[in-house]
Amino acid sequence: MHVVTVVSGGMDSVTLAEFLHAEGHQQTIVSVDYGQRHRKELRMAELCAERLIAPWILLELPQLGALLSGSALTDPSVPVPDGHYAEESMRSTVVPNRNAILLSIAMGTAVAKGADALAIAAHAGDHFVYPDCRPEFFDALEVAFLEGNQGFAVEGFGIMRPFIHKTKTDIAALGAQLGVPWDLTWSCYRGDVYHCGTCGTCVERREAFHDAGVDDPTAYATING
Amino acid sequence: MHVVTVVSGGMDSVTLAEFLHAEGHQQTIVSVDYGQRHRKELRMAELCAERLIAPWILLELPQLGALLSGSALTDPSVPVPDGHYAEESMRSTVVPNRNAILLSIAMGTAVAKGADALAIAAHAGDHFVYPDCRPEFFDALEVAFLEGNQGFAVEGFGIMRPFIHKTKTDIAALGAQLGVPWDLTWSCYRGDVYHCGTCGTCVERREAFHDAGVDDPTAYATING
Repeated sequence: MHVVTVVSGGMDSVTLAEFLHAEGHQQTIVSVDYGQRHRKELRMAELCAERLIAPWILLELPQLGALLSGSALTDPSVPVPDGHYAEESMRSTVVPNRNAILLSIAMGTAVAKGADALAIAAHAGDHFVYPDCRPEFFDALEVAFLEGNQGFAVEGFGIMRPFIHKTKTDIAALGAQLGVPWDLTWSCYRGDVYHCGTCGTCVERREAFHDAGVDDPTAYATING
Repeated sequence: MHVVTVVSGGMDSVTLAEFLHAEGHQQTIVSVDYGQRHRKELRMAELCAERLIAPWILLELPQLGALLSGSALTDPSVPVPDGHYAEESMRSTVVPNRNAILLSIAMGTAVAKGADALAIAAHAGDHFVYPDCRPEFFDALEVAFLEGNQGFAVEGFGIMRPFIHKTKTDIAALGAQLGVPWDLTWSCYRGDVYHCGTCGTCVERREAFHDAGVDDPTAYATING
């Protein structure tokens, strides 16, 4: 199948692309620069596409960050919170309607290219804070996209979300099996030289490797430094 | 209510904005430059926002046109077809997933701004060719957006689509009642000095004014010229 895969460059989406590659699918990798605080992840997405010899499409929506301001991920005036995802403070890392925006653009691309499916790496650990990572959201969005592209999308088209009931620990274990080059993935919401080790996504990353019993090659500023 | 209204600058969306204004709603007008063949419509959207003293947000996605190439509306190598919407030839004017892309960005904006609703001018005449103008699509997208923004969108949030069961003739009649300045709306898919009078949207525009018994002030190249 030809799959249009949304890859941010984090460990989940890079593992997804490697997984789909191992399953024998042809991919087009789509990344979106929506005015994130930093572009480290995007470079990792580009390297992933190169590794898998898949076309990489970077769509630049630099104004989107300002438009959706108020999120710590796009607005430099909002501090990145430390701590665990399952906390109220992580609300400030929500970019309103982000996955609908990313997927609607990826869907347009998929239909234009005659691809068979979209794929996204949303997983069970995201559900608590991010409503647009929950199964109900993807179920409903798939219905909407199929309605909105009737007669244009390929017969049998669907949104693949193979990690939706997996934890990040499961993803770390799967990635290790697949030989994902973890040093070529970026998680940290801050974009410093090293992963900070304390923001929500760094905490999750560390826990996932630890709980999966996978060696974590990441240099964390606050842990190793 | 504070409504985020998607306005292209055509007669339908400008009438929608004037209608919502007359109903007493506060609006933020959102337009998207997705690499259309021309920007005449966008200038009309800007003028509409100025007239209604509403903030105007133009989101530029210039790469989107190339990404979704193959549509006569964004790809200069595809000729704009002449004729009526209810024809197979109009398939080339479909921009894949366009309304999902526009609405998902508008939805992010609405949630970020704490608005009460989104509004779009899709109407019954669009249903035949454009699957993303059909009631079933908006119904499904609304469900997805409410799921994806649970706890972040304002209580009771919805996608307003007051024209969904109206014809373009109904819209022309309503616009005439509201005093819409038709000369400050642009329909033509071609972006020449005058409306061409023969492309799908020009044909619809002319018919709507005629059938509503509304004086059509538009200068058409092929009719008046």
